[in-house]
Formats: sequence, C-alpha cells, structure tokens
Amino acid sequence: MNIYLAGPDVFLPDAADIGRRKVEICRRHGLTGRYPLDNTIDLAAADASLRIFRGLEAMMDACSAIIANLTPFRGASADPGTVYELGYMAARGKFCLGYSNDPAAYADRVRRFTTVTSRDGRLVDSAGLSVEDFGLNDNLMMMHALELHGAPLVLPRQKPADIWHDLTGFELCVAMAAKRLASAS
Amino acid sequence: MNIYLAGPDVFLPDAADIGRRKVEICRRHGLTGRYPLDNTIDLAAADASLRIFRGLEAMMDACSAIIANLTPFRGASADPGTVYELGYMAARGKFCLGYSNDPAAYADRVRRFTTVTSRDGRLVDSAGLSVEDFGLNDNLMMMHALELHGAPLVLPRQKPADIWHDLTGFELCVAMAAKRLASAS
Repeated sequence: MNIYLAGPDVFLPDAADIGRRKVEICRRHGLTGRYPLDNTIDLAAADASLRIFRGLEAMMDACSAIIANLTPFRGASADPGTVYELGYMAARGKFCLGYSNDPAAYADRVRRFTTVTSRDGRLVDSAGLSVEDFGLNDNLMMMHALELHGAPLVLPRQKPADIWHDLTGFELCVAMAAKRLASAS
Repeated sequence: MNIYLAGPDVFLPDAADIGRRKVEICRRHGLTGRYPLDNTIDLAAADASLRIFRGLEAMMDACSAIIANLTPFRGASADPGTVYELGYMAARGKFCLGYSNDPAAYADRVRRFTTVTSRDGRLVDSAGLSVEDFGLNDNLMMMHALELHGAPLVLPRQKPADIWHDLTGFELCVAMAAKRLASAS
C-alpha cells in the first residue's frame, strides 16, 4: 500500500532526513511511504511551483492512503497545504489518517495568538470573528474528515519536547494503515 | 448551477447577512449559491460539529462549483476549513474558483507575524521553517489547484478597507461561473 506522507515537514531544515525516517517506519510496517520531496523539481525553473503541484497531485493519485501531519504550523491551525491534500484524498475515497503533536484544544490554542472573549454565548477573537469551540483539536472539517474517512486524529497525551521530530503519533498512524491493509487482504 | 460558497464568512458577527448578500449576487447571475449556514444545526446537540460536517459534505456533493474566500484568516494563510473544502471539491472534479481580499504575496504577509530571514538561499521564519517564496498569494497547493481546476485566484489591486465585507472579488468569481455555465449549455 502506497501512503502519501503529507505535512509541513517539508519546510524543516532537515526535511529530507525526516522523510527518510518516515519512509523507513512505513517500510518496517510493510508499507510504501511516498514523501513530497521524492519528486525532484528544479526550483530554479520559472514554473517550479506548478511543477511541484502537478507532481504532488500525481503522487496523491498513486496512493491509497494519506497520513497528514496536522501539527499547528505558523499559527493556531495545521499547514494549509497539508489540509488541502487531506480534503483531496478524502474526496477521492482514500484512507485518511492524521496526527498532531499539539494536544491542546483549538480554542485554547487560539488564545496563544489573540485575546479570546465570550460574547452572546460564543467565543470571539480580537477581530470579532467566532472561535470554534467544540473541544476539537482543529477546525471541524479536518477532524471529522479523519473520523469518517479513516480514523480519528492521533494525539499525544502531552506535547513532546520536539514537536517537529517526534514521530510517535506518525508511527501509530502507520500501524493503523498496516492493520487495514492486513484486514483487506 | 449550484455553487458552494466556502469561506470564513461564517465566523463573522453578521455571517447570516453576508450569506444572504452572496446568495443574492449568485441569483442575479442566474446561479444558485449554497451557503454553509443554510443547513440548520442544533448547536446544543452533543454531536453538533459532526452534524455540521455531514451537512456540509452533502452540500458540497450537491454543488457543481465552489467559490472559496481565501482571505487570510487568523494568520498568514486562508481558513483551513475552507482550504479543506477546496481540496475536496478539486478532487471531485468540480469547477474551483477563489478570491482573497489581501493581495500581498505570502512571504510578505508572513513577515507581519514573524521575523523572516534569508539562509542558504531560502527564506526561513523565526522557528527555522522555510517560507514559500514563489511570489504566490498563499500556499502553492491552493493557488495551483484553482489555476488547474478552475481559474486563478481573484485578487484586488489594493486591499479593500473592509476585507470581510467587500464582495467585489466574490462577484468576479460568480461572473466566471455564470460564463462557464453559459458556454456549457
């Protein structure tokens, strides 16, 4: 089973190394991990970003499952590129798994970035925009997509010391994918 | 043609009113706008968020196009719920349109939230994570999804005074959807 390894890991300084670790974990569970950086793109090309997109879309289409790293990225929510890919894979009927290394509820995390107050029974941020308050880890679209198109988001009991390199949650997702493959065959 | 009206508009204090304005613009162009708040959900129910998800997924499946409001939400990027929906609709082969009321390039916008420096020829934020620097308005996945599955992101020349209530970009998207419908029939 080919699994698309989505996440902001590609933005880390050691992005290639994280990818190798993830692919190796997949291999140990009898699965094939496909990591975005496996596509070789000439970043100096004028249409580099379009080539990246086309390559990733083809990679997703060639995979039967996605494991999305939904650890908050540059704000209170997951990386939008990863979220796009989760929506894409859910709509294609692929097996959708995800993890985050920050177990805080979304509303609590928003409080780290802005003042959140209660108004007329709902939470609002400093701009007056509602803050989702269902006790979920992130926006309900991603959370329930995982629940209905795969398995609920995997979270640690406590935030690990290194949220970008701890692969415990990732490996739990891989194990779930392996179990599904075994039960399907 | 039914069009799914995605966006963080639902988090505004006057969310229902914005929805009515959007649906009315669609009607004037001969189209049917479907707004998330059209689904009536009992927010006091224990499974309210799951009911919202199911309702929105059904609404998306009943639409032939999406117009996504990708105006940055609570950070440098678009609302993740909206981004999920864009990915979902792209994968279902629906006509994908989107607009943002903030014309700044993504890398420039990130600078409003964190220190961005140049290291080994790439931009990095204060956490050492790479900042996409293709001159695009947001993450390349959403930008090229629009380009390849519908039309390029609609942007204003200048940021409007009220980014949450200016519907100029939205109406341009509606006009494109109407034109497509006319050419298809």
